[in-house]
Amino acid sequence: MEHQPRIRLGMVGGGADAFIGAVHRIAARIDDRYDLVAGALSSTPERALASGRRIGLAPDRIYADYAEMARVEAAREDGIEAVAVVTPNHLHFAVAKAFLEQGIHVICDKPMTSTLEDAETLRGLVESSGVRLMLTHNYSAYPMVREARRLVAEGALGEIRVVNVEYAQDWLAGAAESKQSKWRLDPEQAGRGGAIADIGTHALHLASFVSGLEPTSLSADLHSFGAGRRVDDNAHIMLRYPNGARGLLWVSQVAVGNENALRLRVYGTRGSIEFDQEAPNRIWFTPIGEPRRLLTRGGAGFAGAARIPAGHPEGFLEAFASLYAEFADDLRSPDAPRAPIPGVRDGVAGLRFIQAALDSSGRDGAWVALDPA
Amino acid sequence: MEHQPRIRLGMVGGGADAFIGAVHRIAARIDDRYDLVAGALSSTPERALASGRRIGLAPDRIYADYAEMARVEAAREDGIEAVAVVTPNHLHFAVAKAFLEQGIHVICDKPMTSTLEDAETLRGLVESSGVRLMLTHNYSAYPMVREARRLVAEGALGEIRVVNVEYAQDWLAGAAESKQSKWRLDPEQAGRGGAIADIGTHALHLASFVSGLEPTSLSADLHSFGAGRRVDDNAHIMLRYPNGARGLLWVSQVAVGNENALRLRVYGTRGSIEFDQEAPNRIWFTPIGEPRRLLTRGGAGFAGAARIPAGHPEGFLEAFASLYAEFADDLRSPDAPRAPIPGVRDGVAGLRFIQAALDSSGRDGAWVALDPA
Amino acid sequence: MEHQPRIRLGMVGGGADAFIGAVHRIAARIDDRYDLVAGALSSTPERALASGRRIGLAPDRIYADYAEMARVEAAREDGIEAVAVVTPNHLHFAVAKAFLEQGIHVICDKPMTSTLEDAETLRGLVESSGVRLMLTHNYSAYPMVREARRLVAEGALGEIRVVNVEYAQDWLAGAAESKQSKWRLDPEQAGRGGAIADIGTHALHLASFVSGLEPTSLSADLHSFGAGRRVDDNAHIMLRYPNGARGLLWVSQVAVGNENALRLRVYGTRGSIEFDQEAPNRIWFTPIGEPRRLLTRGGAGFAGAARIPAGHPEGFLEAFASLYAEFADDLRSPDAPRAPIPGVRDGVAGLRFIQAALDSSGRDGAWVALDPA
Amino acid sequence: MEHQPRIRLGMVGGGADAFIGAVHRIAARIDDRYDLVAGALSSTPERALASGRRIGLAPDRIYADYAEMARVEAAREDGIEAVAVVTPNHLHFAVAKAFLEQGIHVICDKPMTSTLEDAETLRGLVESSGVRLMLTHNYSAYPMVREARRLVAEGALGEIRVVNVEYAQDWLAGAAESKQSKWRLDPEQAGRGGAIADIGTHALHLASFVSGLEPTSLSADLHSFGAGRRVDDNAHIMLRYPNGARGLLWVSQVAVGNENALRLRVYGTRGSIEFDQEAPNRIWFTPIGEPRRLLTRGGAGFAGAARIPAGHPEGFLEAFASLYAEFADDLRSPDAPRAPIPGVRDGVAGLRFIQAALDSSGRDGAWVALDPA
Repeated sequence: MEHQPRIRLGMVGGGADAFIGAVHRIAARIDDRYDLVAGALSSTPERALASGRRIGLAPDRIYADYAEMARVEAAREDGIEAVAVVTPNHLHFAVAKAFLEQGIHVICDKPMTSTLEDAETLRGLVESSGVRLMLTHNYSAYPMVREARRLVAEGALGEIRVVNVEYAQDWLAGAAESKQSKWRLDPEQAGRGGAIADIGTHALHLASFVSGLEPTSLSADLHSFGAGRRVDDNAHIMLRYPNGARGLLWVSQVAVGNENALRLRVYGTRGSIEFDQEAPNRIWFTPIGEPRRLLTRGGAGFAGAARIPAGHPEGFLEAFASLYAEFADDLRSPDAPRAPIPGVRDGVAGLRFIQAALDSSGRDGAWVALDPA
Repeated sequence: MEHQPRIRLGMVGGGADAFIGAVHRIAARIDDRYDLVAGALSSTPERALASGRRIGLAPDRIYADYAEMARVEAAREDGIEAVAVVTPNHLHFAVAKAFLEQGIHVICDKPMTSTLEDAETLRGLVESSGVRLMLTHNYSAYPMVREARRLVAEGALGEIRVVNVEYAQDWLAGAAESKQSKWRLDPEQAGRGGAIADIGTHALHLASFVSGLEPTSLSADLHSFGAGRRVDDNAHIMLRYPNGARGLLWVSQVAVGNENALRLRVYGTRGSIEFDQEAPNRIWFTPIGEPRRLLTRGGAGFAGAARIPAGHPEGFLEAFASLYAEFADDLRSPDAPRAPIPGVRDGVAGLRFIQAALDSSGRDGAWVALDPA
Repeated sequence: MEHQPRIRLGMVGGGADAFIGAVHRIAARIDDRYDLVAGALSSTPERALASGRRIGLAPDRIYADYAEMARVEAAREDGIEAVAVVTPNHLHFAVAKAFLEQGIHVICDKPMTSTLEDAETLRGLVESSGVRLMLTHNYSAYPMVREARRLVAEGALGEIRVVNVEYAQDWLAGAAESKQSKWRLDPEQAGRGGAIADIGTHALHLASFVSGLEPTSLSADLHSFGAGRRVDDNAHIMLRYPNGARGLLWVSQVAVGNENALRLRVYGTRGSIEFDQEAPNRIWFTPIGEPRRLLTRGGAGFAGAARIPAGHPEGFLEAFASLYAEFADDLRSPDAPRAPIPGVRDGVAGLRFIQAALDSSGRDGAWVALDPA
Repeated sequence: MEHQPRIRLGMVGGGADAFIGAVHRIAARIDDRYDLVAGALSSTPERALASGRRIGLAPDRIYADYAEMARVEAAREDGIEAVAVVTPNHLHFAVAKAFLEQGIHVICDKPMTSTLEDAETLRGLVESSGVRLMLTHNYSAYPMVREARRLVAEGALGEIRVVNVEYAQDWLAGAAESKQSKWRLDPEQAGRGGAIADIGTHALHLASFVSGLEPTSLSADLHSFGAGRRVDDNAHIMLRYPNGARGLLWVSQVAVGNENALRLRVYGTRGSIEFDQEAPNRIWFTPIGEPRRLLTRGGAGFAGAARIPAGHPEGFLEAFASLYAEFADDLRSPDAPRAPIPGVRDGVAGLRFIQAALDSSGRDGAWVALDPA
């Protein structure tokens, strides 16, 4: 087998100190499927230049303006084939649109856009062209999350009855917030949803990804505990599923003692599964009437793929990298069987969820329908 | 210090194979504060006799009729001072009432009664007399639950923001139910509430006991997954507290892989606490901005009481026994500082909760007020 | 079934503040098989009297002298049938001997005696008479330890290869030691072994009990870290078994952060088992080539006996009580199948182990044979 | 800050299906400090060519002979600056020597060589030149292992008393061994040590790295349980340290139910630390007399470096990558403060340990001195 030519990648956002830009760059390198060759890493020309040089971009491929970048790169023979959009949320839409319209594939952080309308527009763009968009719901790429999904799909849990998902953090528990994450609390930059948009969409996606079920309605109680905070930092949401299953979704950014505690529990008629993102190399699987079993990545019965043997922990970056590698496979071999990569449909589902949660909470928890995305 | 005379105890219910009767008898023995001397252990004369003999009761103190037992024992000079009521739920009220009216103290399983009205009646009886009623919310007597309560009361968590409690079991996940527990699923014997009554009242009590807060309203989604089951076996409930705190309460008896998973998490402005009933000798305590600490019964900082040193697990029976011992202290030294023993007020709160949950769920999750008990 | 008459029990040692005396008394009460009716709870007459009154003994059955107690009780028609010996270690021998010689059954704390010679003497006494001695290796009575033993005995682990046992505490890590436990560090009262006698004999017994194997030789490195301490507070010991299996035994009382961390791991050709005393209601069982399974007391596959259902933790006192109940069964129904209650043979094995460990360590870790007890 | 030119890297070994070669390549990419430009990935020309093409090497930099590669690359202006040696153990020495002699820095898997003599030779070479050798004791690069080392070095544990390290696997528990790992069991290819060389050197290094102590003598009991196996698959080793501390080292490849269970526990006069490689983002730290604290990578008090925030698991590959990045720092900025990268001294220490363990075990566990490396 020959080495496949790497995909020429660009990046918008992700300058100097941005956490998520560095994550994307590492993820793109891990499996050696991409060359990062162009970027508009910041919206100020000086910072864009400094950030671009720092990561070794050629001077003529450092841009201060993403729209120019889209145009110029699309025109180059050696122009980028895909772009990673790692800006604050409110810019996702315009940036993604600009590149999609130039026929450049997009890798986009979640939530996909700030409004449902924009999300639908992106979906239309993608569906009416051959251009692709991957949404980085990275938690769905943990090997044991995939394994959980497989077990559910194969019927090991029987009919699903209860889906409980929670995502608890504590970085907004105190008074002071980090400068860097300021934009996440500004409705103009992050959108109207706070925790429900930032982490709630991850929780919803994970629950749907594993259970194979999407909620049909929800009842939400959103709250903001931080003084003067304009978006929710805690949300309690009850869910109903088309098959009669019930769900709970809790997200919080004020839950002292939680770092990044995304946990999913799915209970069916024949078994259950439990996953904890902070220990991602294992899941609990209990067939009804039998002892709990600790399944491990690479361990007995594991049917998935992994870079390293059982007992050698893979982490967050590897899962992120798997999405990148799978997207590369898609682009290079579009007719091969696709891995379950999140895309525009998931982006629309996320925005519908945010919208419904805000609506329900605004109406004192009334049940609000969630149309299928 | 002299040995204190033991309290003369009777029991109603708890014949031969009943699990909870045996638990009460062990609990009464552990700290040597009671002598079990009389009983109406079954409602059929033969079984009452056999059960009474089996546990060594004198023949003249074995009764087939609790009402007769209340009258006769009240009249005896050496009659019982207290009675343990361990019947199916629907009989609690009549039995407790009969003994309270005879001036005999009552130890009663939860839920206290089948209806809120009956609960209020018992409260009236207790409050208008010197007779006492202890409700066996046994989980509140774990030393580390007491420790959690102390930490909250002393302000170690600051202002409470989020209270999440769950109680998951799986004994109703399958089709077949055990004969013994049949009455729990029969609304005529157990009351209209299923899981919310059987274990939901425990969850509610634990949350209130530790947090020091009682919810003012709730929104509930009760469901019955078992075919033909007439009471709820899963409930998702959102809670609101007077100080603005938010809560979640999940109870389930169909959550495969859970044995008796009662777990409480309380988050405040300054810290958090997490408790898991299946590992009752420890709690997590996290002061904001500091590492998580594992506090243990008898370990560093422990301010409570325990029978055995740190690292020697105490369990369910010991907690039950602590309630019995504390009740004995109350009866023998009524003016000494009281331990936080659950009583009629907690019983009323439990019934209000069941009632409100049924009402809310019947009205599609509308918020229903919970008046203070 | 009729109520069985309770066994009339006496106690030597266990006055006022002694931890272990209270444990024995609770253990004797839990299953209602004993009446504690006589005692020599202290060696000073005043304290013996006060302690006896405090626990409700009749004045004429409070003794200051155990020898007198043995004589008088043996002569009474309603005299004690069994005695619990809960004195400091150096007195076990004389007390046990006195009662055995009077035909009174003995319940004795470990180590059984201070010297191997004395242990052999007790064994001779027991074997040449119908009188019985139970040694309170209480950890072997946890239901899940019994379950582990069963699994090994039934071949679920195949041929045993590795037996690793450890017992770590930290109560001697600091400079100051509690007054109460002073005798444990005094070779005159506790014997020449420190940690290896106090907790090492528990570890050895547990390993043998579960694995069904007794080591044939050992190589020991005993050490005393505490300034001026005259007995070992840490011991590393390598073990060899008759079938070629290898073992490690680590005991420490200076391992900061450990409360009572007795842990056993047994690995065979077909599976493994892991037990942790601080979480005694479960064990890990891994059949080769399969996922790890968490077996629970009362859970799927559990073949043992338990007082309460799965998920309701039993603890240290319940295991202790099980030994008491089983000893009562033995005394009342001597021909029924015996539970695996530790006795004089285990006591001799413990003393041989202490002796061998001291010998080996004194000879710089040379391998020393352990003859079968 | 400008982008630093990447280090030109070569690789010897690591063809097609080799697990560890792929690990090195990913590790080299993660932080973007290396370009892999040359390789002798296999000793057969066809496989070397195929493997080289597959990872995208230029045809003229694919070699079938490592000696030729060393010569040619040293002569090229754009020749490699460093080489990763990922062959079976018995080739490490010759390959490393060839490149060191050409002035090319070496990244070498452990154990560094098959014999102590060879290890000393490599050390001589490195010390007499400016050329560097990094030994991939990758477990020492977990951020929380570094944190543990820092805590010990800063005195948080006081004087160290007990060091217990274990490394348990089960891949040799069954009869059949994987083809791929066959060489590990062949003394000609892997050296005389089995588990003690393969994983024992990791365990020893980790213990020394964190505790800051190196054992001065050991007593070993090595055993081979697998039928016909010519090297040890289980080893029990007692350690003594210069300050009087005691240690235990257990390695096993027949411990059913263990995947890659490298665990370290260090106990001192003032505190303790516990680390588990399978949960590498946290350590337990217990100051004497205080509750256990769970320290996390990126959490409260963390003084180290990490690529991603707390709660986002880093794993095995990231630790490996950290060594690569630090080695790049060393090569590019040789005068900057050095990270604690393992090198020839650690390689010699590893071989001395293997030698001593074999000697001691051959002499029935006699204590054998370990001279400082």
